[in-house]
Amino acid sequence: MTDDAKQIISFFKGLQDEICTGLEGLDQGHHFREDLWERDGGGGGRTRIFTGNIIEKGGVNFSAVHGQMPDQIAAALKIPANEFLATGVSIVLHPSNPFVPIIHMNVRYFETSVGKWWFGGGIDLTPHYVIDEDATFFHEALKQTCDQHDLSYYPDYKKWADDYFFVKHRNETRGIGGIFFDRLSSDDASDRLDLFSFVQDVGQTFLPTYLELAHRNKDTSFSEEQQQWQRLRRGRYVEFNLVWDRGTKFGLDTNGRTESILMSLPPMANWVYDHQVAEGSAEAHTLTKLKKGIDWVNHKTG
Amino acid sequence: MTDDAKQIISFFKGLQDEICTGLEGLDQGHHFREDLWERDGGGGGRTRIFTGNIIEKGGVNFSAVHGQMPDQIAAALKIPANEFLATGVSIVLHPSNPFVPIIHMNVRYFETSVGKWWFGGGIDLTPHYVIDEDATFFHEALKQTCDQHDLSYYPDYKKWADDYFFVKHRNETRGIGGIFFDRLSSDDASDRLDLFSFVQDVGQTFLPTYLELAHRNKDTSFSEEQQQWQRLRRGRYVEFNLVWDRGTKFGLDTNGRTESILMSLPPMANWVYDHQVAEGSAEAHTLTKLKKGIDWVNHKTG
Repeated sequence: MTDDAKQIISFFKGLQDEICTGLEGLDQGHHFREDLWERDGGGGGRTRIFTGNIIEKGGVNFSAVHGQMPDQIAAALKIPANEFLATGVSIVLHPSNPFVPIIHMNVRYFETSVGKWWFGGGIDLTPHYVIDEDATFFHEALKQTCDQHDLSYYPDYKKWADDYFFVKHRNETRGIGGIFFDRLSSDDASDRLDLFSFVQDVGQTFLPTYLELAHRNKDTSFSEEQQQWQRLRRGRYVEFNLVWDRGTKFGLDTNGRTESILMSLPPMANWVYDHQVAEGSAEAHTLTKLKKGIDWVNHKTG
Repeated sequence: MTDDAKQIISFFKGLQDEICTGLEGLDQGHHFREDLWERDGGGGGRTRIFTGNIIEKGGVNFSAVHGQMPDQIAAALKIPANEFLATGVSIVLHPSNPFVPIIHMNVRYFETSVGKWWFGGGIDLTPHYVIDEDATFFHEALKQTCDQHDLSYYPDYKKWADDYFFVKHRNETRGIGGIFFDRLSSDDASDRLDLFSFVQDVGQTFLPTYLELAHRNKDTSFSEEQQQWQRLRRGRYVEFNLVWDRGTKFGLDTNGRTESILMSLPPMANWVYDHQVAEGSAEAHTLTKLKKGIDWVNHKTG
């Protein structure tokens, strides 16, 4: 394991701690449950699950697994099997209130003993109801983080998120996107710390941004019909994660820890055949915003 | 299209009608909603959806699509692209009462203009609570149907169902299995009517068998906790269908009609992190029965 890797692991652990503390501060009186687990073959993780008042179901997971790469992982990554290290933090939060969005974050690092290494990750938002100002606020926060490192990052990784978080069989995006990047690397190992610095900043963008979105909307009152809509949107979230998400598929195919991987699935989801929304409704507005290529930073509300 | 194919299509349509009438008789005062749809390129279907009292959400779908085979279908089937016909009836019923099982049936026929043809299908049962006598009754009905055609069918297709309806990442079967078969064919086209006769009998086993299971359990009272368990088991049903079911994947990959394919998904499902059952409970009993290789026909209760 490289010295950089040790530093990255240590940062990821600290990030998990910081975010858990922040979320416990938001949803007072509730605490994360922690399950420590070990992987046959090397490494393990800290799965932390939250069941609260504002966050109905959430997971903030850290893992760092290493050892001889199983053949199925080498095949899935299309690289030769070697000693490897994979570490990261993964978060999915399902809020109780339909006006608070679902959020997902992942930051990860991978290296092999023959010198291959890369970072991946991103943050994306899945509102049950798209509130334009909140979507713009969210994308502005991501752009600001990206722009501190490279002006090409935000447009490139925003497009990557639009393309990745796409529910093909529904012809809609999972939510309003965000940023997504994978296999960020360089032939020059000294660039690794620069990329790490970007990934650190992405990780640290998560908490203040989500706390703001939660505070804005957690006390908005909602009806039974709006909660029903939330459950339908959660159903779409399930469809994306189980049908299209490469991370979920990779985890399930490579014998990952199922309960940690599927912490992303929501409480109480619903499927209704051919559900239709009323013209001009907030639900209809939301559907018009589940498209690729919306420029949220310069978005005119309407 | 062969003359046999015309006869098969006509049988499948009649089977759909018969089953819909039977289910409307069970769940009186409720009626199927029918959506007729056409496929660009040839053929279409009759999607019939039920929302009732005993059946909370169900679909009984017929389709017959034909035309030039799209490349993606040829690739998925691993055969050269030709003129093709694919027809079948697909059923999934999600009952309201946790003591009534979820049931799935599919019968299908496929042929190409260059003489390839096959049948596929099966019936399998997913009880939220495994009731041993009901499981034995169900398997006995399937065995009786199979034995009229070939004594090897029941053991072979029962094993095929155990292997197919397996939720690998949970290391459990989807339910108590049933029968499953695919690509039943012969070099001798005159065998086609014999196989068709078997598939007809499978189709006609569905209604009386499910009506009996529904009548046995539809009035059993249940608690909020038992309904909660039902929702967790529905979650597993979703996991199987979206992660492992080749039929669902084939449909979504080949641009099938999404609302018809995903009629299989349940109303109200739930995911709870690391859910545990109480020792000696009916839930724990159920989990011991979600294994491959149980000989339900000669099963000793316990």
